[in-house]
Amino acid sequence: MPRILPSVRATTPIALADVDIADSFWSPRIETVRTETIPFQYHQLETIGHLDSLRHQRQDGDPVPHIFWDSDIAKWIEAASYSLVSHPDPELDARLDDVIALLASAQGDDGYLNTYFTVIAPEERFTDLRDAHELYCAGHLIEAAVAHHAATGKTSLLDVMRRYADLIGTVFGRGEGQIRGYDGHEEIELALVKLAEATGERRYLDLASYFVEERGTEPYFFDLEAERRGTPGYFGDQFSGEAHPGRTREYLQAHAPVRDQHEAVGHSVRAMYLYSAMADLAREQDDDSLLEACRELWQHLTTRRMYVTGGIGSSAVNEGFTRDFDLPDETAYAETCAAIGLAMWAQRMLRIDRHRRYGDVLELALYNGVLAGLSHDGQCFFYDNPLASRGGVGRNAWFDVACCPPNLARLLTSLGSYAFATGDAELVVHVPVSGTVRVAAGDETAVVEVEADVLGTGRVVLRVTEAPRQPLTLTIRIPEWSRRMTLHVNGEPLDLDDADVLGADGYASATREWQQGDELVLQLDTAPRRLRPDPRLADHAGQVSIARGPLIYALEEVDNGKDLHMLALPQGADLQIHEIDGLQGVEAHGQRSTLPGHGLYRMSAPVIEGAALRLVPYFSWANRGNGEMRIWIREC
Amino acid sequence: MPRILPSVRATTPIALADVDIADSFWSPRIETVRTETIPFQYHQLETIGHLDSLRHQRQDGDPVPHIFWDSDIAKWIEAASYSLVSHPDPELDARLDDVIALLASAQGDDGYLNTYFTVIAPEERFTDLRDAHELYCAGHLIEAAVAHHAATGKTSLLDVMRRYADLIGTVFGRGEGQIRGYDGHEEIELALVKLAEATGERRYLDLASYFVEERGTEPYFFDLEAERRGTPGYFGDQFSGEAHPGRTREYLQAHAPVRDQHEAVGHSVRAMYLYSAMADLAREQDDDSLLEACRELWQHLTTRRMYVTGGIGSSAVNEGFTRDFDLPDETAYAETCAAIGLAMWAQRMLRIDRHRRYGDVLELALYNGVLAGLSHDGQCFFYDNPLASRGGVGRNAWFDVACCPPNLARLLTSLGSYAFATGDAELVVHVPVSGTVRVAAGDETAVVEVEADVLGTGRVVLRVTEAPRQPLTLTIRIPEWSRRMTLHVNGEPLDLDDADVLGADGYASATREWQQGDELVLQLDTAPRRLRPDPRLADHAGQVSIARGPLIYALEEVDNGKDLHMLALPQGADLQIHEIDGLQGVEAHGQRSTLPGHGLYRMSAPVIEGAALRLVPYFSWANRGNGEMRIWIREC
Repeated sequence: MPRILPSVRATTPIALADVDIADSFWSPRIETVRTETIPFQYHQLETIGHLDSLRHQRQDGDPVPHIFWDSDIAKWIEAASYSLVSHPDPELDARLDDVIALLASAQGDDGYLNTYFTVIAPEERFTDLRDAHELYCAGHLIEAAVAHHAATGKTSLLDVMRRYADLIGTVFGRGEGQIRGYDGHEEIELALVKLAEATGERRYLDLASYFVEERGTEPYFFDLEAERRGTPGYFGDQFSGEAHPGRTREYLQAHAPVRDQHEAVGHSVRAMYLYSAMADLAREQDDDSLLEACRELWQHLTTRRMYVTGGIGSSAVNEGFTRDFDLPDETAYAETCAAIGLAMWAQRMLRIDRHRRYGDVLELALYNGVLAGLSHDGQCFFYDNPLASRGGVGRNAWFDVACCPPNLARLLTSLGSYAFATGDAELVVHVPVSGTVRVAAGDETAVVEVEADVLGTGRVVLRVTEAPRQPLTLTIRIPEWSRRMTLHVNGEPLDLDDADVLGADGYASATREWQQGDELVLQLDTAPRRLRPDPRLADHAGQVSIARGPLIYALEEVDNGKDLHMLALPQGADLQIHEIDGLQGVEAHGQRSTLPGHGLYRMSAPVIEGAALRLVPYFSWANRGNGEMRIWIREC
Repeated sequence: MPRILPSVRATTPIALADVDIADSFWSPRIETVRTETIPFQYHQLETIGHLDSLRHQRQDGDPVPHIFWDSDIAKWIEAASYSLVSHPDPELDARLDDVIALLASAQGDDGYLNTYFTVIAPEERFTDLRDAHELYCAGHLIEAAVAHHAATGKTSLLDVMRRYADLIGTVFGRGEGQIRGYDGHEEIELALVKLAEATGERRYLDLASYFVEERGTEPYFFDLEAERRGTPGYFGDQFSGEAHPGRTREYLQAHAPVRDQHEAVGHSVRAMYLYSAMADLAREQDDDSLLEACRELWQHLTTRRMYVTGGIGSSAVNEGFTRDFDLPDETAYAETCAAIGLAMWAQRMLRIDRHRRYGDVLELALYNGVLAGLSHDGQCFFYDNPLASRGGVGRNAWFDVACCPPNLARLLTSLGSYAFATGDAELVVHVPVSGTVRVAAGDETAVVEVEADVLGTGRVVLRVTEAPRQPLTLTIRIPEWSRRMTLHVNGEPLDLDDADVLGADGYASATREWQQGDELVLQLDTAPRRLRPDPRLADHAGQVSIARGPLIYALEEVDNGKDLHMLALPQGADLQIHEIDGLQGVEAHGQRSTLPGHGLYRMSAPVIEGAALRLVPYFSWANRGNGEMRIWIREC
């Protein structure tokens, strides 16, 4: 794909065609998405009415198209396209062509394309940017178009979405007669950057930049819009009152121009999509002040408002952020899509500001906050992800959860682009995933086999199986979670105190003329460890969470009985690795206390007995019944 | 006062005229109410516009009378009347006459009396029972009338309110042309019972019974009312949507007939006033099923939804109850008025079902949940009472807090009637308060001097200073908080294992022909103690609160530095009594941990150092700056 502007600092996510994932942990999950999730998602589009709406074959009594429907179609196309790259499938390819043809047929002569407004409210087009998700849907369709084009080389959807993007570019802007606004739910901004990358057309980048820069300026667009419209808007009835979070400027990150935003606020998915676009634009436009804003937001989010799982957005009320250090476990919202959005933002920060602070959080979110959303069988989903449960909380069938399953599908089918990046004759491993990667080195192609065992032994091998003649750089993130590590090339140790080997960014590199079979071997420390919260997380004072490698662990009732909060872990207790029901578990000698007597507040002393604490990875919880769960354990 | 029906089980709160409180703890607080609160409250009535509204001297631009205004006037009259009993004050007496004359002049020919509806919306009388607090205001005026009559013997206000009550009795009921409804905010029910007691008129009791029995029946009155009215009601705009707590039936305890209510729900003050009236009616009507409902509600509330301070109602959203064991500290609502309401209910339960389960909670609420509402200087008030603060939370000047200061004033000026009750030749001490009490014994009057030091030595002396010829029973509650106790008459021990001495109800009695100077001496154990929460209070697992006698203790920043949650109390640590800034403090050798490093989740081990933990009574917090505070302390 052509790049608009060169950026000396950047590496690029690897093209999906250049990576074959063969990972004992990830591959089965990706395969489930391919064989279960994507077909089921299509089935939903057919049966709920999305496709019939495009076919203009709706009957009286058919469900009214939801304003999100186009994004459902889009995410299916995007995931299906990614899947085609690793698993060519003529049937799926043809099905994609059919759906795209439907989309094309539903497009207006002027390029407009939106199921809800076309079917239900054609007069109201572009009058309710705050609530109606109109450009949000367009953004997802653009992402789908770029993915489909990259996967198949076909321009069928790309052409459709270029036409629509061109219309949007004429409707919105600062010119005479244009709407000087932006969408209430960010998404089109990052999509337009992708479209610019895919087409080499600068104007899409400029439009993305316009949307981002206009946001939060005065006079406040959504006030002007509401005045013009004269109605309370799509969510008017539900989101009533000035004080409702859905009506605050912070909710949609429009409380200040983006460079003046210093804290992650509001609806968390919206925030992640905005910050992703900001990072994209900082890179493409070489814009240091925008990068600085991103860094500040990242620092704020990850040091004050992020769960230990990489989940973000603690409140269901606004589906988003509340106050610093307000991270309740049992009522955690921590939407799966928000953790996915965090991974998206991290991926983009790594393109312009490579540092393990992003890679560590990317890995954390993938293995915990994101993956917890998905049941082992791939059939059930968490929309919100509590970090503690008193029991009775479980994943729902897809049918009940609209946005997260397709978002999970597109993330997992494009996992390679999060795990690996390439620079000039360089392979960068952000997240070690086993498989084979192809990297351009001048006019040659190097092939590197990755064997990653970060969940087990901690050994990561990068084996050059096809060596270029010219030097190739192999770069890998050294996660902060590893207290000890060694790096060897063919058995020879590299000095990790040498800044040329391990940079200040936490990435270790070896550049040389590799021979076929040469190995760069990173040995990480995957002994279980205790994490303790910043003292400002007052509710967790004196508590620890257990981690191993990138995984956060949890106690479940099925392994430990009820009243998990009555368990405690002695400060000196060994943390042993121990298989539990086929899961990589951790076990320790702990204590269980009971309190004799009755009444709400008792004078009796607790009775303390030894108890084995048996922990399993957090992502795996609620797969063996919906009993109690908790991550934070009292230390005694 | 005549009683309507005899009840063999009941004792009666002492008449205020029969008790002179002279207590080193309570008297200064009551004196502050007399010299500061009551005059200031009157000043408010004059300056805000309450009295001018009665005078019909309102000008354009005057504030619209608030629907609560009559209750403000009423609570002032009630507190001022109680105060007159212990402190005759001709000036206050005359001022009361003036205000009562204004009320009389504002009464309609038909007996109707309500400032808001008379001045603002005369057409809307009795059309918005759900929101408009119309009968609630009437109830408070009735309570005021009864108090004024008891204090002065005058019937000026009692006559006014009898007329109004008679009107209400014709308007409401199950007869032809009557409104078959009840008020959204309970209050008139318990007031009518008082009016029946004061006048000996059975019809007021019947009216109270009608309101209580009608509540929560089908068809649902407030739906019918809203339909008839055709408008959303007084709070229509603020309380919108079916799901808003102010629109749920539970919010106003109308989700079921009262005998089918098994859990304390909804707005907590409303609940307490209803349950108080239910207890009154169970007593007056000798109604076992109503008593059983009260007992069940009490059991539910005090074992599942009560803070360790006796505060109740954990959520600001509905000013009330949420779920069992949902008692967050920092966001605790625990309205001062709700703790007062709990004391009112306890007082009434003790009249029909004497047991220390009520006396213990009465005492707890008085010393903690209620008293925390008042600053040491009597000038500032907590409306809601958090049980933990990260700093910056303090009491507000009265001006900002409408309902709690007058409610505190009437409670403190009538404290004697909560502390003492009398039966047939019997003095019952529910809450030991120092002073002198007169008790009828046949045609004689016994005088008993009480010396109570429950906050210090734990010694409570009941000294008979005027002895009747006939036997007199001295009865005192043995609080469950005392782990050891002795009871002596003139130095001779009584056997507390003897059921004739210490009953199953937790009250100890001695009946004899007392001689002048005879003493019943109860020695309680006031050593500081640790309270541990029911294991279902999961957030406080492994934590303790410190209590001494009836007081709950708290850590404050001013004594312990910041980050109180980083302090811990070893299991074996001695709890020493230790004066802190003139307060009865408790001190212990504890630990403070700090966590080196940075980041939200750290691998570093905590550094633990010795630290003195210095605790002060919870009620006294936020009198020496508005720093951090917490009650629950991690045990280590």
